[in-house]
Amino acid sequence: MLISEITKLIDGEIEGKIKGEIDKVSAIEEAKENDLTFCLEKKYFDKIGTTKAKAVVVPKSFSLKTSKIVIKVANPRLAMKKILEVFSKKVLIEKGVHKTAVIGKNVKHGKNVSIGAYVVISDGVRIEDNTKIFPHVFIGKGSSIGENTIIYSNVSIYHDVSIGSNVIIHSSAVIGADGFGFVPLNDKYEKIPQIGGIIIEDDVEIGACTTIDRGAIGNTVIKKGSKIDNLVMIAHNCRLGENCALAAQTGLAGSTVLEKNVSMGGQAGTSGHLTIGAKTTAMARSGITKDIDSNKVVSGFPAQEHDKEMKMQASIRRLEELINKVNKLGKEIKGQRSEA
Amino acid sequence: MLISEITKLIDGEIEGKIKGEIDKVSAIEEAKENDLTFCLEKKYFDKIGTTKAKAVVVPKSFSLKTSKIVIKVANPRLAMKKILEVFSKKVLIEKGVHKTAVIGKNVKHGKNVSIGAYVVISDGVRIEDNTKIFPHVFIGKGSSIGENTIIYSNVSIYHDVSIGSNVIIHSSAVIGADGFGFVPLNDKYEKIPQIGGIIIEDDVEIGACTTIDRGAIGNTVIKKGSKIDNLVMIAHNCRLGENCALAAQTGLAGSTVLEKNVSMGGQAGTSGHLTIGAKTTAMARSGITKDIDSNKVVSGFPAQEHDKEMKMQASIRRLEELINKVNKLGKEIKGQRSEA
Amino acid sequence: MLISEITKLIDGEIEGKIKGEIDKVSAIEEAKENDLTFCLEKKYFDKIGTTKAKAVVVPKSFSLKTSKIVIKVANPRLAMKKILEVFSKKVLIEKGVHKTAVIGKNVKHGKNVSIGAYVVISDGVRIEDNTKIFPHVFIGKGSSIGENTIIYSNVSIYHDVSIGSNVIIHSSAVIGADGFGFVPLNDKYEKIPQIGGIIIEDDVEIGACTTIDRGAIGNTVIKKGSKIDNLVMIAHNCRLGENCALAAQTGLAGSTVLEKNVSMGGQAGTSGHLTIGAKTTAMARSGITKDIDSNKVVSGFPAQEHDKEMKMQASIRRLEELINKVNKLGKEIKGQRSEA
Repeated sequence: MLISEITKLIDGEIEGKIKGEIDKVSAIEEAKENDLTFCLEKKYFDKIGTTKAKAVVVPKSFSLKTSKIVIKVANPRLAMKKILEVFSKKVLIEKGVHKTAVIGKNVKHGKNVSIGAYVVISDGVRIEDNTKIFPHVFIGKGSSIGENTIIYSNVSIYHDVSIGSNVIIHSSAVIGADGFGFVPLNDKYEKIPQIGGIIIEDDVEIGACTTIDRGAIGNTVIKKGSKIDNLVMIAHNCRLGENCALAAQTGLAGSTVLEKNVSMGGQAGTSGHLTIGAKTTAMARSGITKDIDSNKVVSGFPAQEHDKEMKMQASIRRLEELINKVNKLGKEIKGQRSEA
Repeated sequence: MLISEITKLIDGEIEGKIKGEIDKVSAIEEAKENDLTFCLEKKYFDKIGTTKAKAVVVPKSFSLKTSKIVIKVANPRLAMKKILEVFSKKVLIEKGVHKTAVIGKNVKHGKNVSIGAYVVISDGVRIEDNTKIFPHVFIGKGSSIGENTIIYSNVSIYHDVSIGSNVIIHSSAVIGADGFGFVPLNDKYEKIPQIGGIIIEDDVEIGACTTIDRGAIGNTVIKKGSKIDNLVMIAHNCRLGENCALAAQTGLAGSTVLEKNVSMGGQAGTSGHLTIGAKTTAMARSGITKDIDSNKVVSGFPAQEHDKEMKMQASIRRLEELINKVNKLGKEIKGQRSEA
Repeated sequence: MLISEITKLIDGEIEGKIKGEIDKVSAIEEAKENDLTFCLEKKYFDKIGTTKAKAVVVPKSFSLKTSKIVIKVANPRLAMKKILEVFSKKVLIEKGVHKTAVIGKNVKHGKNVSIGAYVVISDGVRIEDNTKIFPHVFIGKGSSIGENTIIYSNVSIYHDVSIGSNVIIHSSAVIGADGFGFVPLNDKYEKIPQIGGIIIEDDVEIGACTTIDRGAIGNTVIKKGSKIDNLVMIAHNCRLGENCALAAQTGLAGSTVLEKNVSMGGQAGTSGHLTIGAKTTAMARSGITKDIDSNKVVSGFPAQEHDKEMKMQASIRRLEELINKVNKLGKEIKGQRSEA
């Protein structure tokens, strides 16, 4: 691809001579002579001196001297997205329904679908146009999948699950297993049947080995645009608003409500039956035990506002000093008393 | 189903006129005019005023005025279990052995089993009556599965695993992978073969993407009635007593022993080679580092008795105040001294 | 196997009469009369009095009187490894390519491979000699797998993943899913295509339901000899040095670098873009938020040196006492003042 085309694509501003083409996109340390690379943050700018790449995409603020071609952009991550989209057009699964796919009764699928080897699709499933389903996926009775959705290998989708368009579900994710619902009776647990469903709206991404349980009664809901990383647990009857982001190994207990644009760092967790307000951020490892308002940043366990938590952590780190100080004060008082 | 039948089933007491039938069971916010719903806790009682449901199951203590039919019961969760069992009789997999199932030598299976498409059952496996095995399950050599057990899609059961009756195992769970056992030698790790097995007794439920490792020597054991949520790690040679309950993302290190009726909240963990006594509860995110007696409630990391932990957490939250107080005392003493 | 042969194999020293053969190896509590067992640690030595085993492998330091045959060795865990290797020669999957395996174009595989039922291998994959691939494994386009490697059932390996020799990957692990990379734009998340790959070197073991994401640009790398337990998350562009060990449920955020021989306990985690120096140990549940030097032991969250953390934890546990002390001091000062 011509450097001039790339520059146009990302609405960039070139510094240096524009010499021809780019072979591929590489990491800054691994780039070869005809490669394009990225250097998005100031702290890595010195790597531009040593990379072999021909051209480097940098933020507008970049002002160092270099012999490389630099392409300055207002939003370097957006530029990265646009360029990588061009360089990632690999076909990973062929069009068509593989002859080994087992398709149930009353299954409807749209145009241009890819249904891989050994996929099992149960009765009454509906799959829209251009959707790709990789080998060994199981889809239970009556579930539906929208357009342009990608389901990677070994995903399990139980019955009565509704999945939207432009959704991506990574391998070994499990959508629709029973919620963890039991009634204790005479020191034993009796299972409460989980008869609810799941609604996953458009543009959602679900990571590998993530589990989203079906509702006990009523649905578990993941709204449009939410992104969920690997190994995340979403329990029965949770409701995620639009454009939430949950990093890896986070866990939401039953009936947790996240309003829109909530983000949670890795290994965070919530108690059940609580609400986190819109645009609130829970830092990594937060343990949220009660409702949180909108537009907050929280951390710690039990989670509190992040600046409070930071002060508290700083105080804890001064605790030994405090103990010494108190001991000293005690001696001084004793001293004063004996003087008196 | 007739409201009168439901009332009888759950040994309930009706208030309001008994008008005919129920179509289905719904969540209180989503219910339609002919639906039954549940309102189990006082804090949600005001929802009864706005639900469209025809009838609501409530606890005995309910005493508000309402135009709805209410059915009062002593144990509302038990009532829920009984009613949902009636409304959940959906057939999710057909009877019989699917023609694509690969069955090894000397495999025995009982009557009325359902063995789905592309299931692979290795040599010497034994499966009892009425057990359901969903597509893409793999069962290793010499393993056995009892009656009425359900194994959902994409579960892996390694060799020499014994699974009881009325067990449920959710998708992508892995039963019998090698324990994490190595001997360090010259800064490398040498693998210790894991030759033990696994015994899972009757009435156990295992969540999606949960991993239970086989014993190094001797068995990992999960006793009758224990319930394990999603994404839980149970390491080699752990022993869970009867009726334990482990919430999601909990992890037990090697050779942990839980006596009967232990329950652990989400994201809790234990060090290895320790024992937690019967009927002890570890709150969510507890990190247990030593033996715990029976009948305790513990929390925190390192875990201690819950009321101690609560006091400690309260003290930490007063730490800044304490620092200020000590500073003030210091000044006062200095003041007294200079006065003196 | 003759006791004399075993003794020779592990370079042991026998005490007691050497009587014939061993049937099998068992756990000390479960052993039968002709079994061999292990008793590796002093705190379990009293179990030797009650085991039914014929012979017990013990450390050199053992000096109790017993009627059992004891075999003393310098490194009991190494002895265990050697003996269990002899007793674990079970064939778990047959040689050859199963007739139901779906093999793409331009796939090359070496001698003596085992490719199980319903394995799907995409175009351009290369598999070396003696490698075993269990049922329901999916391998994406252009990936490669070395010699003597074992891939258990239901593993998903995406495209362009390079796996070395003598590697073991347990069931439901996912190698090569997309990294969690998005650019926020107008309160939505736009996906950044993940075009990097993964390199897993020789002698690596990867646990069940562990997820290793592909690089965004450039590779995620796991170097020779590293061992990774179950349910671990390794994000895009992480780099693990040789012989690292990560216990279960640990999570590494994007671009984390572990130098060689780093070990991390269960449920530990790291922020992204940081480096942990060689031979550093992070205790269970450590939350590492910044670079750590080599040869350290760290714990806590935010993680600090372990002895500092221990002191800090001890101080916190004395906090209530401190509050009381300060209150008492306050009263004494007040008392002095009123006396004055």
